[in-house]
Amino acid sequence: LFLATTVCVNNPHLGAMKDDSLYHFSLGTTTHDLPAMFGDVKFVCVGGSPRRMKSFIKHIAAELSMEDAKSEYPNICAGTDRFVMYKTGPVLSVSHGMGVPSTGIMLNELIKLLHHAQCTDVTIIRIGTSGGIGLAPGTVVITKQAVDATFLPKFEQVILGKTVVRNTDLDQSLAEELLQCSKELNQFETVIGNTMCTLDFYEGPKQCYQQLSCYNMSVHMKDLCASLSDDFLFLSLHLNYFLVLLFSVNVSCSHVALEKELLTVKTTK
Amino acid sequence: LFLATTVCVNNPHLGAMKDDSLYHFSLGTTTHDLPAMFGDVKFVCVGGSPRRMKSFIKHIAAELSMEDAKSEYPNICAGTDRFVMYKTGPVLSVSHGMGVPSTGIMLNELIKLLHHAQCTDVTIIRIGTSGGIGLAPGTVVITKQAVDATFLPKFEQVILGKTVVRNTDLDQSLAEELLQCSKELNQFETVIGNTMCTLDFYEGPKQCYQQLSCYNMSVHMKDLCASLSDDFLFLSLHLNYFLVLLFSVNVSCSHVALEKELLTVKTTK
Repeated sequence: LFLATTVCVNNPHLGAMKDDSLYHFSLGTTTHDLPAMFGDVKFVCVGGSPRRMKSFIKHIAAELSMEDAKSEYPNICAGTDRFVMYKTGPVLSVSHGMGVPSTGIMLNELIKLLHHAQCTDVTIIRIGTSGGIGLAPGTVVITKQAVDATFLPKFEQVILGKTVVRNTDLDQSLAEELLQCSKELNQFETVIGNTMCTLDFYEGPKQCYQQLSCYNMSVHMKDLCASLSDDFLFLSLHLNYFLVLLFSVNVSCSHVALEKELLTVKTTK
Repeated sequence: LFLATTVCVNNPHLGAMKDDSLYHFSLGTTTHDLPAMFGDVKFVCVGGSPRRMKSFIKHIAAELSMEDAKSEYPNICAGTDRFVMYKTGPVLSVSHGMGVPSTGIMLNELIKLLHHAQCTDVTIIRIGTSGGIGLAPGTVVITKQAVDATFLPKFEQVILGKTVVRNTDLDQSLAEELLQCSKELNQFETVIGNTMCTLDFYEGPKQCYQQLSCYNMSVHMKDLCASLSDDFLFLSLHLNYFLVLLFSVNVSCSHVALEKELLTVKTTK
C-alpha cells in the first residue's frame, strides 16, 4: 500500500475563505483553477534571480524532452513584478528575490498554492549561488546542516513581540540522492557541506571588499575560521526560514548552491 | 559660508580598490564614469516594486518638466535583474525588492555609488505601501519613530557571530517638511505615525488571512493593540536597516508609505 503525501497546511481559516488571494503571485482561488494549473506538480525549484529561473525551465524542458519550439515559457505570474513562475510538466520554477523576508513571502504563498492545487509527493529544491569558504569557484554544495548567524541550527522569529525558535532540518536522504545523481553525471565537483544563513549580505558575514564599514581583515578571517568545523561552509541569505516553513508541511526539501567566485573567502585552515 | 555635505563612507578599503564592482547594480568604478552619471543626484527615492519605480520617474519627470517625449527612461541597471534604476535630473529612482536583506544589499551599493559619484546634500526617501492599523486605506503615513518586532527603536544584527545593536533615527525635520508639502497639496490624507519593521511579512505581524498557521483572532488583536501607543502604527519589511545604514553617512532620510487596503488591520482601540 502506497499513500500519497499531500501538502499539509494547518490553517483552518483557509477552508473558510471565499477567496484566497496569493497576492504576490497575482493568482487566487476564485480567479484561477489551481488544481488544473498545478495539480501535477512534483518538483518545485526556487532561486533568487528571475532570469535564472527562466533559463532553468528551458533547460529542464529540454532535459525532459518536453520543450515546445513555439512556447516562450510564459511567466505564470505576469500580473505582478514581485516574483516570476514557469512550468514544464511536473516541474515548477519560481524566483524568490534576495533574503529571508522575500523568500518567506514567496514560500507562504507557494505552500498555499500547492495545498489549494491538491498536489501530492512534492519535493522543493532551492538552487542558487552562495559565498563559499575553502572551495574552488564552480563547486556545487548540497547543504547538510543549516545554521543561523550565531552558528546554531535554528531560526528565531519575533511573532507578535514574542521570540519563537524553530529548527532547520533538511531531508538528509534527498541530499544523499542529489549527491549520487551528481556523481553519476560526473560533470562538476559536488560536495555536501554546512550553510550559514545571515540576514544581511554584506555586514553579517563581512564580505570584506563589498562592505561600507572598516574591518580588520586578519581578525575577521581568524574569527570566521575559529567558528568553523572541518566541513565546508557556505553563506546564504535564504536558507533557514526556507527550512522552517517547509518542515511541517510534508514537503521534502534540499538546498543546492553553486560557489560563486565573487563571494569566495579563501582560507588556509 | 555654506559647506556642501558629502556622502561619508568610513571604509579605508574603498580607496585602495582598483575596481569597486557594484555587483547587484551591474555598475562599477572602472566600467562606468560614476561622477558623470550620478554627480548631480540630490534626491533618491526607493521602493520595493520595479514597475512602480519606473512609473515614479515618469511622474517626477513630468512634475519637473524634464520629460523627454522620445525617452523611454532606460533602466540604468539593465545588466542585472536584481534591481532597477531610473534617473531624471537630480532624482534617482531605485527598486529594493522585499525585506530587510534585499533592501540592505541595494543600500550598501547605493551609498557607495553616491560616494564614488561625489554627490553632496543627498536626501533619500523610501516610498511604498505598508499595512496600517486604524487608518483609512489610501492614507499616506510619514514615519516618526521606527521600532523593531519587539516594539523597540533599534535594529539588531549578528556580525561574525556577535550581536550588534544599532539605533533607527529618522530626520524629524524632513518628516515635518514632507507633511507640510502634503498639506499644501491638499490632495490626500497624510499623517505622521510610528512604523514597526518585521523580518517576515506573514508571521511576524500575523496577517490573519494570509498566513499558514492558525491564530486565535481575538487574542491576536488584543496582543497587537496592547502594545500600541496612541499613534498610528504601520508595518514595514524594510525600515530599520534602511535607517541604520543611512544614519552615519550624512544623508537625510525619511519613510513615506501608502496604507494599502489588502493589509489593513482595523481596530476599535
